[in-house]
Amino acid sequence: MPEVIPADSVGLVTPQVHHFDQPLTLRSGRVLPEYDLVYETYGQLNANRSNAVLICHALSGDHHAAGYHSMEDRKPGWWDNAIGPGKPIDTNHFFVVALNNLGGCAGSTGPTSINPQTGKQYGPEFPIVAVRDWVNSQARLADALGIEQWAAVVGGSLGGMQVLRWSIQFPERLRHAVVIASAPKLSAQNIAFNEVARQAIAKDPDFHDGYYHDYNTIPKVGLTQARMLGHLTYLSEDAMRQKFGRELREGKLNFSFAPEFQVESYLHYQGEKFSTRFDANTYMLMTKALDYFDPSADYNHDLVECLSHAKCSYLVMSFTTDWRFSPKRSKEIVDALMEANKNVSYACIESDDGHDAFLLPIERYHQVLSAYLKRVAVEVGAKA
Amino acid sequence: MPEVIPADSVGLVTPQVHHFDQPLTLRSGRVLPEYDLVYETYGQLNANRSNAVLICHALSGDHHAAGYHSMEDRKPGWWDNAIGPGKPIDTNHFFVVALNNLGGCAGSTGPTSINPQTGKQYGPEFPIVAVRDWVNSQARLADALGIEQWAAVVGGSLGGMQVLRWSIQFPERLRHAVVIASAPKLSAQNIAFNEVARQAIAKDPDFHDGYYHDYNTIPKVGLTQARMLGHLTYLSEDAMRQKFGRELREGKLNFSFAPEFQVESYLHYQGEKFSTRFDANTYMLMTKALDYFDPSADYNHDLVECLSHAKCSYLVMSFTTDWRFSPKRSKEIVDALMEANKNVSYACIESDDGHDAFLLPIERYHQVLSAYLKRVAVEVGAKA
Repeated sequence: MPEVIPADSVGLVTPQVHHFDQPLTLRSGRVLPEYDLVYETYGQLNANRSNAVLICHALSGDHHAAGYHSMEDRKPGWWDNAIGPGKPIDTNHFFVVALNNLGGCAGSTGPTSINPQTGKQYGPEFPIVAVRDWVNSQARLADALGIEQWAAVVGGSLGGMQVLRWSIQFPERLRHAVVIASAPKLSAQNIAFNEVARQAIAKDPDFHDGYYHDYNTIPKVGLTQARMLGHLTYLSEDAMRQKFGRELREGKLNFSFAPEFQVESYLHYQGEKFSTRFDANTYMLMTKALDYFDPSADYNHDLVECLSHAKCSYLVMSFTTDWRFSPKRSKEIVDALMEANKNVSYACIESDDGHDAFLLPIERYHQVLSAYLKRVAVEVGAKA
Repeated sequence: MPEVIPADSVGLVTPQVHHFDQPLTLRSGRVLPEYDLVYETYGQLNANRSNAVLICHALSGDHHAAGYHSMEDRKPGWWDNAIGPGKPIDTNHFFVVALNNLGGCAGSTGPTSINPQTGKQYGPEFPIVAVRDWVNSQARLADALGIEQWAAVVGGSLGGMQVLRWSIQFPERLRHAVVIASAPKLSAQNIAFNEVARQAIAKDPDFHDGYYHDYNTIPKVGLTQARMLGHLTYLSEDAMRQKFGRELREGKLNFSFAPEFQVESYLHYQGEKFSTRFDANTYMLMTKALDYFDPSADYNHDLVECLSHAKCSYLVMSFTTDWRFSPKRSKEIVDALMEANKNVSYACIESDDGHDAFLLPIERYHQVLSAYLKRVAVEVGAKA
């Protein structure tokens, strides 16, 4: 817990909930009759409402991107190192909006919410949502907040896919797209990793086909395994070597199947921690949204044609040791944007931290993000 | 099934079993009072017994490396493309020995064998074996076959680790070591993948702490998941892209959690096939042997010092897209061998097939292996 709130923090923040009455037709054809979105805002919206920045979260993120909910909080929001006064996403200039996506488990309508049509938890009956559904729901939140056009939409990983989708779906409604450690679509290998993780959950006897709530249990074992695998792929081989190498927990081999190497204990710890805080049905949904994302599919699989409809400028960033969403995948985006004659800046950041790098305060990364967004702030006339 | 046996096949082969009465003290300190090894041989041992080649198998391999057991066999042995008359491991020149390792599930003593001290299956009570234990047991098999010195010991992946260990443990007993797609020790990332796979098995309710035989069941779900993950890491991202891309089974998204993409179906198929043929306790043991392998640990973690005790020549090979045992890991072996003034050849083979490449008939790979072993054949005076 912070004894005092640091000077460069957005400070204490209170999540807000907006209820949407208008039905939302989803990519799958199913309809959400009504829903809530929980969100937080940091900084001040300026008079001409031109300085709003939307943060899109990744697989396991939520609306609590910066600051503290109380003086008892052990940790600030998940991207606190990048959002705040004087930080790359500078709340002295920008009005920052972060939300929990539909299907999430942090307050927005999702599998753990009550289905108004049945009076029971949605559970596995919550519809599979696609990235475009999130973007549609985010656009309605923008309407509710009186934001006609975002100064920038920013996101990493699955968040970066939402940013790409924004630029195609609502070309008039954003001036800048910041796409970090992302891809224009998942590779077969990415999908395969997601499926192995989903299987771990689906085959946990406590999953009960997603109706675990009715059995008063959670698929803790499956969710732990899914997260262990996920976490492992977010780290680079180099980072794991530096962090753990072949260090043994007790300094010697035990010739048993209990975790012996430090790296095993670490993954168990990460997996178990996650399994008590995250909803399994949400995890299933989020990985499906990742698998499905492929905006070029609507344009005969031509990414250039797909992106030619965009009007914003782009900053694309990747990290050298990220093998889950490698620099090559970011370059596919950059190449297509250039071919479509879009305004695009690209930076590949040296880092040992694999995919996780996009969440870390890496100096060069924050310098590039900061420099880009400073120009955006000037351009949109944000107060300096 | 082969209608006729191909001319370059070793033909119909019959596995043999050797029973060893002398107790074997294992790395763990535990003792196997007696044990069987099942093996096959191809080609003829020459008069001065100088032309014997030992094949060491990887995680899921066994003694059936080449030829057919009957005219009804659908497939030949696992390395049939490399072993036979006129093939790289040429049975016109060499007497080839392939065995199933201790702890295996294909006929050698392992978890599914009867423990003579209890009259019941070993199951999870079978001791965790290390690579050095396998090499010790292989040396006893060599004794039994009257082979004082191998012309070459050959293996890929975990098999390559046995080859390395042979060269250190019995320097006088081999003239050539062929180490393919291997590593001097696993990285933290490798260990992490193994632990996630083991967890899938260990947490399957049908595993019963390894006593599934007593419950008349097998942990099919866990073993399927473990194999799905393993298989996924044996393929390269490029190979998966070429093979599956984002192809859908039914040509469209179903918005359900059943496998939709071809790559998902493929992995399910591979996993399920494996789960009915392989023993789960053996899988657990084999992955532990991988994790534990680190011959330099006995030499103050100095691989050069460790390998300085070797007397054989080496051929080391790796494959460009193998990310489970990358070329970098083979180069660590090569660099240490050079620093230790050993005779070493190294080839990194262009291939899209990831770690699986070591099992495939890649032309350049087989040319290099062939050329090297031809010189070995001449050197040891194998009949030409």
